[in-house]
Amino acid sequence: PSQQTSSFGPSVWLEFSPLSVKHKSVNLGQGFPDFEPADFVRDALIKTIEKGGLNQYTRSAGHPRLVNALSKFYSPYFNRDIDPMTEIVTSVGASEALFCTIQSVVNPGDEVILIEPFFDIYLGAVLMAGGVPKYVSLKEEPRVEGKKRTADGWKLDINEFEQAFSDKTKLVILNNPHNPVGKVFKLDELTEIAEVVKKHPQTCVISDEVYEWMTYDNAEHLRFANIPGMWERTITIGSAGKTFSITGWKVGWCIGPKPIIHSIAMAHQYIPFSVPTPTQEAVAIAFEEAPARGYFDQLKKMYQAKRDQLVSALADSGLDPVIPQGAYFIMGDISKIKLFGDQGQNTSITGMGKHLHDWNVCRWLTTDIGVTAIPPSSFYSDEHAPLSTNYARFCFCKKEEVLETARQNLLKVK
Amino acid sequence: PSQQTSSFGPSVWLEFSPLSVKHKSVNLGQGFPDFEPADFVRDALIKTIEKGGLNQYTRSAGHPRLVNALSKFYSPYFNRDIDPMTEIVTSVGASEALFCTIQSVVNPGDEVILIEPFFDIYLGAVLMAGGVPKYVSLKEEPRVEGKKRTADGWKLDINEFEQAFSDKTKLVILNNPHNPVGKVFKLDELTEIAEVVKKHPQTCVISDEVYEWMTYDNAEHLRFANIPGMWERTITIGSAGKTFSITGWKVGWCIGPKPIIHSIAMAHQYIPFSVPTPTQEAVAIAFEEAPARGYFDQLKKMYQAKRDQLVSALADSGLDPVIPQGAYFIMGDISKIKLFGDQGQNTSITGMGKHLHDWNVCRWLTTDIGVTAIPPSSFYSDEHAPLSTNYARFCFCKKEEVLETARQNLLKVK
Ligand SMILES: CSCCC(=O)C(=O)O
Ligand SMILES: CSCCC(=O)C(=O)O
Repeated sequence: PSQQTSSFGPSVWLEFSPLSVKHKSVNLGQGFPDFEPADFVRDALIKTIEKGGLNQYTRSAGHPRLVNALSKFYSPYFNRDIDPMTEIVTSVGASEALFCTIQSVVNPGDEVILIEPFFDIYLGAVLMAGGVPKYVSLKEEPRVEGKKRTADGWKLDINEFEQAFSDKTKLVILNNPHNPVGKVFKLDELTEIAEVVKKHPQTCVISDEVYEWMTYDNAEHLRFANIPGMWERTITIGSAGKTFSITGWKVGWCIGPKPIIHSIAMAHQYIPFSVPTPTQEAVAIAFEEAPARGYFDQLKKMYQAKRDQLVSALADSGLDPVIPQGAYFIMGDISKIKLFGDQGQNTSITGMGKHLHDWNVCRWLTTDIGVTAIPPSSFYSDEHAPLSTNYARFCFCKKEEVLETARQNLLKVK
Repeated sequence: PSQQTSSFGPSVWLEFSPLSVKHKSVNLGQGFPDFEPADFVRDALIKTIEKGGLNQYTRSAGHPRLVNALSKFYSPYFNRDIDPMTEIVTSVGASEALFCTIQSVVNPGDEVILIEPFFDIYLGAVLMAGGVPKYVSLKEEPRVEGKKRTADGWKLDINEFEQAFSDKTKLVILNNPHNPVGKVFKLDELTEIAEVVKKHPQTCVISDEVYEWMTYDNAEHLRFANIPGMWERTITIGSAGKTFSITGWKVGWCIGPKPIIHSIAMAHQYIPFSVPTPTQEAVAIAFEEAPARGYFDQLKKMYQAKRDQLVSALADSGLDPVIPQGAYFIMGDISKIKLFGDQGQNTSITGMGKHLHDWNVCRWLTTDIGVTAIPPSSFYSDEHAPLSTNYARFCFCKKEEVLETARQNLLKVK
């Protein structure tokens, strides 16, 4: 085995999903809906297969009907005509979009800025490209007793961010709406970030916006590529899995400027070569039909209700939640839970030491309480992980009755 | 863009499939069936979607029902109990299986032996891992006038093969049945190869066996992993796309020893994370049902007839074919075609110089004759490509009437 991949252990996803199945816990771990997609999305795939003629390879950089649908759908949101053939690449979920983009942008030795906590897959992909990660943590505002915490209280210290740059900084990875915190970045925050990026002409930005349709309390999703000067160096990543509740179809995409998109397409042709055809056709149909059906408003309303339900379950259980403005996760405070065996060891990508407080609590929640959550220290560097064990991440893209069972189980924590 | 991927140009697939569409030629280029999969395969996918509950992420290393079906199906062929959880990883087509295996095995600077002609995707994946390709060409026996040529006449010079090894040789990539030649390696040939490999304890083997069910004239497909001593270092790659005529579903797999499979699974979790769920379920059902339906015998018979049909069309058109014993391609001799503009330049992976004789002929066949074929020089190193322009590769996984139209068009060449 190569030195790189042989140093990798199973990721947090490989640990907690099987553990949840084994213990029959309510799985609020990995972020996938436990309900079916909308009928029109499902029917689009059935009709595609019934019709026939779409069972073979399609265009490597993206099925024509899908890139056309994405271009038509997204152009107004980016305030420009997005060329379907040269400014979009479709991918095997957002994961492969991230992997290909990182392979296309990062040379061995290049530095990549990751904002902690970060979706762990970023780090695996950066390391496989020979990139050198540099970490900047979101800082939580000090708690005010009696006042609710919101994801808004997690801030990027712009000076720290600026200091993380060097002349080797090739890439910054942003995630907005943010997983796991639920933060939705505001215009002034994005503008500040862009000002720093602008000082480094060699630096590109991945803006992972897979939760773009899940924003709450009137928070508005702003696209980083729309900040003046940023289009030319920003790759925006999207996901049909999150948007249409079909994470198992594994359809994602990159949108960005021609030169980077070309380079991504060149990498992509040697990785999966192409994305499955029938699911791309069905996702194209979904995008064609969704706006007229009022789909995105319904989605937001549905998730807002689920968020409120889980926020109150966590609050009632003494797991004081950080109220998210976006995405479908909630950080619940576990700092008051004391478990025998907490050791404060390292939770690195190598998977060698998974004995931090949040890992232990998440295991205990699964085995003893009957609810699975994800330990956010897996979204931090080895160095910062031991300092970041005060929360467990709970996912609310679940059926109402499942969230209610979770509530019943979580009340036992109190 | 990174130096590596920015040096890549569009592959041969990105060139000829659109060209064929543009000129409405009969497309015998890229290897995908133009007919529908068997009803039981198609119905398996429709039923899976109708049933519901399989629209979200599945296990990263492989959907449980599919790895179980593959284990049950393949164990007898490998003369061992293949453990579904630790000796199989499913992938987004054979392409991603190749990419992940190469990422898992090859460190930057490691050498990889490629046997020319080779499926071009191998080279892209090797370069992205920082591997150093070493090339050994199959040698064609001298032609005997009046005697039919067969793929059997293409031989690996075992001394040349042995000389290509160094103490840095980390990987050998075999392809059997062979694309584009159609050679099916015999036991003595595989044994000779294994003897050489055995002398190099650090060397692994990828055996790309995606055409395992397409063998003709009683040629027998032998698995390299079954040669004594080879299991422990061989990753066998398979493809549902080729096996069930569903190249657009993009389901493939790796089978091999636990340590390498573990390493592949660790890479795979950061590349696509998981393979689409519904298509994996449907492929599992296909494998469960296929043997009792006599599917593999029918497939072989169908392809044998198509091979015979295209062999005679090429022979009648003066494009003297190398008769294949396996896979679904035929090399047709184009050495007697003279075109204005043949320049003998380089056809590298960078796509900078696509003016070799076989490229010109394949373009001309598309634009002027109405049949698209693939120039096999794209399956050679830059160094050997200009010496390897005597053939065009024609694909016969097409409907009978399409092959007949191809025949009519090709007769114009004579
Ligand atoms: C590959 S895990 C995907 C799920 C997810 O995005 C999350 O739970 O954070
Ligand atoms: C990614 S191209 C796949 C088709 C193929 O295997 C071939 O034509 O050789």
